[in-house]
Amino acid sequence: MSEITVSFRDIQAAAKRLQSVAVRTPLVYSQDLDARCQARVFYKPESLQHIGAFKFRGAYNRLAQLNSEELGLGVVAYSSGNHAQGVAYAAKLLNCPVTIVMPSDAPRIKLENTRKLGAKVQLYDRHTESREEIAAAIANETGATLVPAFDDPDIIAGQGTCGLELMEQLADYQLQASSLLSPVGGGGLLAGLSLAAKAMDPAIKVYAVEPENYDDHFRSRAAGERVRIDGTVKTRCDSLMATTPGELTWSINSQLVEDFLLVSEDEVAHAISYAFYKLKLVIEPGGAVALAALLQGRLPVQNTVVALVLSGGNIDADTFASCLQQFPNP
Amino acid sequence: MSEITVSFRDIQAAAKRLQSVAVRTPLVYSQDLDARCQARVFYKPESLQHIGAFKFRGAYNRLAQLNSEELGLGVVAYSSGNHAQGVAYAAKLLNCPVTIVMPSDAPRIKLENTRKLGAKVQLYDRHTESREEIAAAIANETGATLVPAFDDPDIIAGQGTCGLELMEQLADYQLQASSLLSPVGGGGLLAGLSLAAKAMDPAIKVYAVEPENYDDHFRSRAAGERVRIDGTVKTRCDSLMATTPGELTWSINSQLVEDFLLVSEDEVAHAISYAFYKLKLVIEPGGAVALAALLQGRLPVQNTVVALVLSGGNIDADTFASCLQQFPNP
Repeated sequence: MSEITVSFRDIQAAAKRLQSVAVRTPLVYSQDLDARCQARVFYKPESLQHIGAFKFRGAYNRLAQLNSEELGLGVVAYSSGNHAQGVAYAAKLLNCPVTIVMPSDAPRIKLENTRKLGAKVQLYDRHTESREEIAAAIANETGATLVPAFDDPDIIAGQGTCGLELMEQLADYQLQASSLLSPVGGGGLLAGLSLAAKAMDPAIKVYAVEPENYDDHFRSRAAGERVRIDGTVKTRCDSLMATTPGELTWSINSQLVEDFLLVSEDEVAHAISYAFYKLKLVIEPGGAVALAALLQGRLPVQNTVVALVLSGGNIDADTFASCLQQFPNP
Repeated sequence: MSEITVSFRDIQAAAKRLQSVAVRTPLVYSQDLDARCQARVFYKPESLQHIGAFKFRGAYNRLAQLNSEELGLGVVAYSSGNHAQGVAYAAKLLNCPVTIVMPSDAPRIKLENTRKLGAKVQLYDRHTESREEIAAAIANETGATLVPAFDDPDIIAGQGTCGLELMEQLADYQLQASSLLSPVGGGGLLAGLSLAAKAMDPAIKVYAVEPENYDDHFRSRAAGERVRIDGTVKTRCDSLMATTPGELTWSINSQLVEDFLLVSEDEVAHAISYAFYKLKLVIEPGGAVALAALLQGRLPVQNTVVALVLSGGNIDADTFASCLQQFPNP
């Protein structure tokens, strides 16, 4: 086992940077979800975070550690959406120029919101161009700092503040959870959550959930090493479309995560409709996978305390409406 | 001025009864709403309360004070929806039989949810029958206790716990609000909120918001006495369709409320779409009126701290989708 290079202390330091800057999202519960799962289920809607997703946490934690010269030269990032908005809003708060390299087929709402936050958006074709090369070229030309989406210790520590809060909020309810479920894309949120949760309660078991069409973590666990999937299969979960686990994130997640679970596209749509009808929350596909796994009984949780993260809420009205139509009685 | 017969102490007693029973709904904020209003705006989504609306608070506070014989004889209530569900769920928790008299044209989701909570639902025709008479007959025949929707000291005290929490949560942010906005239908929530808020901060100004098609409070303030409107005009705000202020609630609200504001049906639809896109919350029409008033600049709030209640989230998928379609870019 390799040494874990991000520490709980890094997460505590990030929490200090984010205090009064990030939203302390609530940890709530619903009698309907409890009854359905025959468990006490607490969910943390990061959809209520700035820019509608947890991504702001990591981005701000990274940018807040740049010096004034670096901030002046600006930052650049590539992202299908939520990371873009997270970096853009963090940059706005820190008065830092920002360029975001985004795929031209990203959800319209995410393109628009990124621009509205004051970022310069550079579009690229996901099928013919390399976003890594474009971003590297911008960094080279302008001296801007590249802000990775997940494979970075400061990003991981920032996302970890979500887990730190969650554990504190569980303690406010005077409860300990046996299991914690989280979506996983590149693995930044998962790594930060796992580090925080395990540091605060070594007995807690962390489960990661991904769409069955983007099962790179599931396959990596089975193979015992990082696996890359081809990534041409479609998924509604645009925020979880990483084709391989991050190197740093995997070094953490492969050690701390109990198991990797899969959900289907229909199960995600069902969870989105459930969140509308029963939780009164707007959750995006990638943000709903952990809820979907729970609703499908993918994990035996009867008579236990369970926590989960609803990681984002940036969904187009059309996609949302189609989920509600598909499952009118979830 | 008449003496106010519900006290802050009643609200504190209600809060004790509701502790660990009601959801302590969060008080949150959004950078987008702050920027749009040029103010610090905090909203309390009672949509996250049991049954998706604040109504559970008052119902439980009323039922929890029945003795075991009364609980055995059951309770009866009439309601277009949220009060029905609130009473039904409170009764379920207290093992008490419950009959709900509901209009046959109530939103389907509210009829279904009331039945699912274990209540016997008795339908009536809003145009030809009197729900008061039907409920009174049931109470007479069975010995059941009638649970009023708003004009009752225990109901008002229960709803007041929403205000008590809101003020405590503002204090957690180390802030005081200059103004507090709330939807008003019959006036139970408004009365409870006003009592709690004014007791905890006499300087706070409370504003009530209602749909312009159901402006009985607005007209009552202008007339200096309770006015009854005809109530045949349509409104999307099914949870605010009281045609006259309650007697007890008006004795409180006429003294404590600074002003009554009106919003149009389109402004409500806009606020629902805004809550979807920016707040990631599902809010029903009646629950969105205070937000609508704020978004329309109906109150000068620049550079102040404002609090508001989003009072419920029980909305049909079709109504929701039509609001998002009408305002795709709110």
